[in-house]
Amino acid sequence: MASPNPENGCLNKLKALPQNIWNKVVEKANKAKKMAKDDPRKIIHSLKVGLALTLVSLFFYFKPTYDGFGVSAMWAVLTVIVVFEFSAGATLGRGLNRMLATLIGSSLGFGAHWIATHSGKTGEPILIGIFVFIFAGIVTFVRFFPEMKARYDYGLLILVLTFCLISVSGYRDDEVIHMAHKRVTTIVIGSIISVVICILICPVWIGEDLHNSIAGNLEKLGNFLEGFGSEYFGTSEGGQANNTNKSFLQGYKSVLASKSSEETMANLARWEPCHGRFRFRHPWKQYLKVGTLARECAYKVDALNCYLHAETQTPMEMRMKIKDMCARISSETGKALKELASTVKTMTKSSKEDTHIANSKEAVEDLKCMLKTGLWEDALVLEIIPAAAVASLLIDIITRTEKIAESVQELALLAHFKSPNTTSTSRQQHLLHRGTIQPTSDRSNHIIVIDMPASE
Amino acid sequence: MASPNPENGCLNKLKALPQNIWNKVVEKANKAKKMAKDDPRKIIHSLKVGLALTLVSLFFYFKPTYDGFGVSAMWAVLTVIVVFEFSAGATLGRGLNRMLATLIGSSLGFGAHWIATHSGKTGEPILIGIFVFIFAGIVTFVRFFPEMKARYDYGLLILVLTFCLISVSGYRDDEVIHMAHKRVTTIVIGSIISVVICILICPVWIGEDLHNSIAGNLEKLGNFLEGFGSEYFGTSEGGQANNTNKSFLQGYKSVLASKSSEETMANLARWEPCHGRFRFRHPWKQYLKVGTLARECAYKVDALNCYLHAETQTPMEMRMKIKDMCARISSETGKALKELASTVKTMTKSSKEDTHIANSKEAVEDLKCMLKTGLWEDALVLEIIPAAAVASLLIDIITRTEKIAESVQELALLAHFKSPNTTSTSRQQHLLHRGTIQPTSDRSNHIIVIDMPASE
Repeated sequence: MASPNPENGCLNKLKALPQNIWNKVVEKANKAKKMAKDDPRKIIHSLKVGLALTLVSLFFYFKPTYDGFGVSAMWAVLTVIVVFEFSAGATLGRGLNRMLATLIGSSLGFGAHWIATHSGKTGEPILIGIFVFIFAGIVTFVRFFPEMKARYDYGLLILVLTFCLISVSGYRDDEVIHMAHKRVTTIVIGSIISVVICILICPVWIGEDLHNSIAGNLEKLGNFLEGFGSEYFGTSEGGQANNTNKSFLQGYKSVLASKSSEETMANLARWEPCHGRFRFRHPWKQYLKVGTLARECAYKVDALNCYLHAETQTPMEMRMKIKDMCARISSETGKALKELASTVKTMTKSSKEDTHIANSKEAVEDLKCMLKTGLWEDALVLEIIPAAAVASLLIDIITRTEKIAESVQELALLAHFKSPNTTSTSRQQHLLHRGTIQPTSDRSNHIIVIDMPASE
Repeated sequence: MASPNPENGCLNKLKALPQNIWNKVVEKANKAKKMAKDDPRKIIHSLKVGLALTLVSLFFYFKPTYDGFGVSAMWAVLTVIVVFEFSAGATLGRGLNRMLATLIGSSLGFGAHWIATHSGKTGEPILIGIFVFIFAGIVTFVRFFPEMKARYDYGLLILVLTFCLISVSGYRDDEVIHMAHKRVTTIVIGSIISVVICILICPVWIGEDLHNSIAGNLEKLGNFLEGFGSEYFGTSEGGQANNTNKSFLQGYKSVLASKSSEETMANLARWEPCHGRFRFRHPWKQYLKVGTLARECAYKVDALNCYLHAETQTPMEMRMKIKDMCARISSETGKALKELASTVKTMTKSSKEDTHIANSKEAVEDLKCMLKTGLWEDALVLEIIPAAAVASLLIDIITRTEKIAESVQELALLAHFKSPNTTSTSRQQHLLHRGTIQPTSDRSNHIIVIDMPASE
């Protein structure tokens, strides 16, 4: 057979090119479709940015306004582009940073410009050079401070920028003031347009994302632990066959690496105003504490997961001896974690997790008693190790869960979570308003038997 | 005793105010001093930013250049401020993104402007509005793609910005071309000044940071494991007293949360040109693989650390039975990890880690044999659990270390690490060059006994 002609190969490749490009395009389009389906907020955000930009562009396109601001009008367009972020917190943070930094930078820049122009023709460039060097150097260094980086990084950047633009401009004093004034005005207009559109049209609250992410992480850990018992002791239905439905065993993995994203969200959430169930000074830091404890618990869960797939396993008949207790500890701890997740999610206090924790602690005592009586006495230590390690990890996870429960309770206190009977209270107030029930002076008595109107 | 007068309290607070402010200032200054001492590169970076800004400001301050560029000159100042980043990779990435995006955005913006102006007075604002809306919407959505976000996020932002500024400008065609031209030129000048100063004066290579961070993480894990044996079996000198010198037991904690910073560094490192021991297409992705495996190992180490401080412990006399083997596994694995760290750090291949891994595997076999013979036969299972779990974790850590060793070997291959005898080879070539030794045809024979000139 003839060897393939290299020229023919090239030609074939060239022929296949349109098809390849088309395949790539289709692949990307499918990816985009999937992304939009997974989080439609991304599509809405893109439309919002388009709208904000069109508004600000047309606002400055029409002559009357344009003449008023001149070239500075582009600062407004520029501001919308750099300030408009996905979440309300990020947009507000950048907008406020930009407005404040422009104001301060303009004032300082004008001061530097004034001093420089009043020190003679030769002194001017030297003084301006020195001012710019010192100011830029100091502010750049300040940006390295972790607490400044977290909240004011963008503001400090704009501070240097405005200072330089105003002080270096090389105009006369009155022109500089005029320029600074226009810059501040256009930037304020741009920032306000961004913030208003971002908050008024389907806002994305990053605080709510953090809230849901923390609750979701607790739930993932709970799901794993609830399922772990039947998985490890081989009592799950369908056995190894239905691996597809075992995503609950992998869900916890995202918790392991959640640190930096949670910290970013908490930093941005602090900019957000009161919205829905969240107040302005919502205790975002406490969420980070819960998150850290959840991560520590996830490390243990990861260790448990390794024993599910370990090469050397304790023989099943030996495992069965501790099955009841371990499965109970695992499922009760899982339930407690899911209860805590629901406490966070619904912002409603609950005491069910205490019951679950107490149940699992009881199981631990039973397990300990059993382990003290010569269980597995005839077995080799090597065979015992995996099951013993699983038992030890489960016992450890309870103490972690207790710590999580404590921090969630602290969060409930700080964030004024509702009491479980608040729903009846609000209903009560509603009925009170309609005159169906009479107010009582005893405020602690939330549950009142009332005649419900049948029409409701 | 009289109750404190509230007015007096206010007065006292007011009196203490200057002192309090002064204390705050001193505290911040000390923090700044410490930060500068810990990483002097931060001071150097601040000075570099100051220098670059002074240069670009004065460059445009002097009339001849200023008149040439007019108001656009400020784009150069602005570019230096937003492009100049701490590391060379980040600066290059932003600079290239900004230049390319400005070029493409200007062209597209001019196209949109041309079409709009040629469609009549009423059609113009409508068409421009539609163009801006569609373009901004699409590009904003594209920014959500993870692979675009990682490398081209800033470029896409600047693309929208330039497109809007040029298309909305409202000038005549030739003016728009002139404006676009000036914008591109000034931005190129600003970007080049930033990149040149960033790379020529004490450059900070983020690739090197990633390289050192990966090596450092392996070393931290190695340090822990080397020290763990003597710590757990109570044979460390000084006992509980010298807690201050036990930082090696905490060092690994930073490894647990290293994921996002490593990913950021790898993304930025890909922009960096060939420097020192690193080529342009250095296998940064392989570093991430090593990092991931190191993190998985760190989760195990964290579990080990918990057993150091656990409440229920196996009695020491029982632990002593497995002491020799466990301590050997731990220290040999630690040595292997440290050897791997040094392999990465010095970029020199080594086979010592294989010996250490083999040693620890031998110890594992001994341990397994011992555990099969009725060790701890008379003991309660509950007492055995912690020590058994420690043994099991140590066995697990060896397999993780082997995986790390494999991935480091892969890295050595991809990044062309030196062979350990390269030093002698290069010395040999040097001597060859000087005519001291004769070349041999047998290339595999690296070690040649030669007469060394005494003067060297």
